[in-house]
Amino acid sequence: MKAAIITIGDEILIGQIIDTNSGWVAQQLTLAGFEVEEMQSIGDNAQQIKDTLDDVFPRVDVILTTGGLGPTKDDITKKTLCDYFATTMVFDNTVLENIKELFPDRTINSLTHDQAYVPKDSIVIQNKVGTAPVTWFDYNGKVLVSMPGVPYEMKYVMENEILPRLQQRFEPEAYLKRVYIVKGYGESALALHIEEFENNLPEGFGLAYLPSLGIVKLRLFVRGEHRLKELKEQEKKLQALLGDAILAEKDIAIEKVLGLRLFEQGLTLGTAESCTGGNIAHLVTSIPGSSRYFKGTIVSYANEEKINLLNVSQESLERFGAVSEAVAMEMALGAQKALNVDSSISTTGIAGPDGGTEEKPVGTVWICTRLKDKYVAKKYQLGKFRDANIMRASNFAMLQLLDMFDQKN
Amino acid sequence: MKAAIITIGDEILIGQIIDTNSGWVAQQLTLAGFEVEEMQSIGDNAQQIKDTLDDVFPRVDVILTTGGLGPTKDDITKKTLCDYFATTMVFDNTVLENIKELFPDRTINSLTHDQAYVPKDSIVIQNKVGTAPVTWFDYNGKVLVSMPGVPYEMKYVMENEILPRLQQRFEPEAYLKRVYIVKGYGESALALHIEEFENNLPEGFGLAYLPSLGIVKLRLFVRGEHRLKELKEQEKKLQALLGDAILAEKDIAIEKVLGLRLFEQGLTLGTAESCTGGNIAHLVTSIPGSSRYFKGTIVSYANEEKINLLNVSQESLERFGAVSEAVAMEMALGAQKALNVDSSISTTGIAGPDGGTEEKPVGTVWICTRLKDKYVAKKYQLGKFRDANIMRASNFAMLQLLDMFDQKN
Repeated sequence: MKAAIITIGDEILIGQIIDTNSGWVAQQLTLAGFEVEEMQSIGDNAQQIKDTLDDVFPRVDVILTTGGLGPTKDDITKKTLCDYFATTMVFDNTVLENIKELFPDRTINSLTHDQAYVPKDSIVIQNKVGTAPVTWFDYNGKVLVSMPGVPYEMKYVMENEILPRLQQRFEPEAYLKRVYIVKGYGESALALHIEEFENNLPEGFGLAYLPSLGIVKLRLFVRGEHRLKELKEQEKKLQALLGDAILAEKDIAIEKVLGLRLFEQGLTLGTAESCTGGNIAHLVTSIPGSSRYFKGTIVSYANEEKINLLNVSQESLERFGAVSEAVAMEMALGAQKALNVDSSISTTGIAGPDGGTEEKPVGTVWICTRLKDKYVAKKYQLGKFRDANIMRASNFAMLQLLDMFDQKN
Repeated sequence: MKAAIITIGDEILIGQIIDTNSGWVAQQLTLAGFEVEEMQSIGDNAQQIKDTLDDVFPRVDVILTTGGLGPTKDDITKKTLCDYFATTMVFDNTVLENIKELFPDRTINSLTHDQAYVPKDSIVIQNKVGTAPVTWFDYNGKVLVSMPGVPYEMKYVMENEILPRLQQRFEPEAYLKRVYIVKGYGESALALHIEEFENNLPEGFGLAYLPSLGIVKLRLFVRGEHRLKELKEQEKKLQALLGDAILAEKDIAIEKVLGLRLFEQGLTLGTAESCTGGNIAHLVTSIPGSSRYFKGTIVSYANEEKINLLNVSQESLERFGAVSEAVAMEMALGAQKALNVDSSISTTGIAGPDGGTEEKPVGTVWICTRLKDKYVAKKYQLGKFRDANIMRASNFAMLQLLDMFDQKN
């Protein structure tokens, strides 16, 4: 069962927004057993929309589109699909009722009112979190579903309405995969380490490498429920080869691995962040339930706060500078005390693009991690890009703390 | 001058990663005057790559691809392009030298060594930040450039090598645009407010609406340097219509608007974050130079830290609960004092998915902002999605503080 995703919107093509819908929809479709053949992003342009559908339909069973359903002039998807499927627009009162229910306090203006016009020969699915209705077209045994482009609306509709219907309709073959988060190897070093394993994989099996900021995500996959036993055999071989280098046996973020480890052991965490500016806290607290182990953060961008809130010594700051082993160590200890936590992470570095010196160039980062009375302080030399440095320092910091858990056992 | 972007990688199609390359490349191409016709994401599949090139080449002048250049078996782009352009692979010693320079301390393993094989009939551009070389193919007056998929490598190569060459080669017509960040209007209310203006835009002009978490980004655009005078006339009309609702006259993030405002006025900022978990600090510090106005953050996930670090009263916590006007106010004041800053932001709420009650459902957020001795405390009722709630609360909090600056003037 093959699927294509088409995201529609000039704002995507000019790079004003990053299309995150395609990736999310692809993930959901894959897990549901569909094979995503391709994704396309095209403009708010009727001819291009029609041409693309003509082009893509022969190759797939399902097309999911997002975008172009807003109330303003530049949104033309609904009208264009209406033309494409040779139907007309009709007013649907249940859509208007749905909109009124969503905004009980608001008067409905004319543009919002017109959101209730829908293509006649389509199944209209109520959008319970937004004003744009979702439409499902059956077409020569294939299906096209048009969804809104606003990510949280699309996600709600996809999870609750579209995916269950698609699965029921097409009953796709299962996509079996195992993802391993592997630490301590670069991509090519890992490939060489498991070269023989990879060369001897049974027909139909695949192995893919995805390097990502200090780790490699390794994905072993095959299609078809009947191959589960074989998959399990291959899994065992891979686990034996990788041993402790496996940080997690599923595709979860490092912050989630860390969260699980903390939660299992009943330990609390706090951070003292300088160069990562709260990003570690943001990542850790993006995990639902993190309030059970995460107690807080002190972001000390200025020296003054390092002294007042984290009890970093004036002497260390003057003698070694803010980006130093001594200050990183004092920050981690200070966070442990001020936040009253079992484990702590501190970061201090030069994220860039300015602020580097010959001795401490942009990308120099000191990270200290503490687990009860043990600590590790390490220097990392990262790159030139501020965003990448913040992300990498955050990941390395969490990995450094995770390593301490492993050593403890 | 038309361009297409093709990102290659199974990990995109199964949704394991979000393709952020396309959006960034599109933005750069658009600013350089190219018209991005389409973006496609396809698999690590030789036939699909060739078919897609056959399909896309007739429609555009330039194709930029990313991905599939890694050292492992699943990376086949280089070999496939070699076939497609009917050339052969040759060993390029300068590529190997570049790799050795990048990793002076590492021994080069066989897979990394093989990265130095390149297509014979192509221009090889050294990748100064990674091991995969960039190749430029000239083909019937058109151009295809194959770049690595690792975002920071691709960005470095694109900015420093590819874009300047493309501009020199094609001399594309300028894309003129103005983006306004508009606050205080929903998308359709804004469209109605400027309906007459939009209907009377000169031929060739376009107007696009992009709603985004509390603001609408409005883009006015036209192609061709000779239309600059007309654009300026339309700008004046739009500015007169929108007045104070314009938060910024270019497409910049709210955290950057806030940063500029603080910097101009020589004021400092600190935050006390509960439900946003450090995300506001993360956003604010993602801006280069933010250390000049941002002093720090206290993320107080637990009540204990609200009391110890922010001086929130036990009484308020017991009487009103952590998610309350009183606690938000005490947190903002506490942050102002503890961090010794001119302005502060506090957030306390229920991000979800758990933790809601009938009285305070998931999505309830109190935000207090302080500017010297003035303050505003407001309750927001957000949605059910944790990630969206964290992002929206962060944006609303920064907008709330920005509103106080505007009122002051």
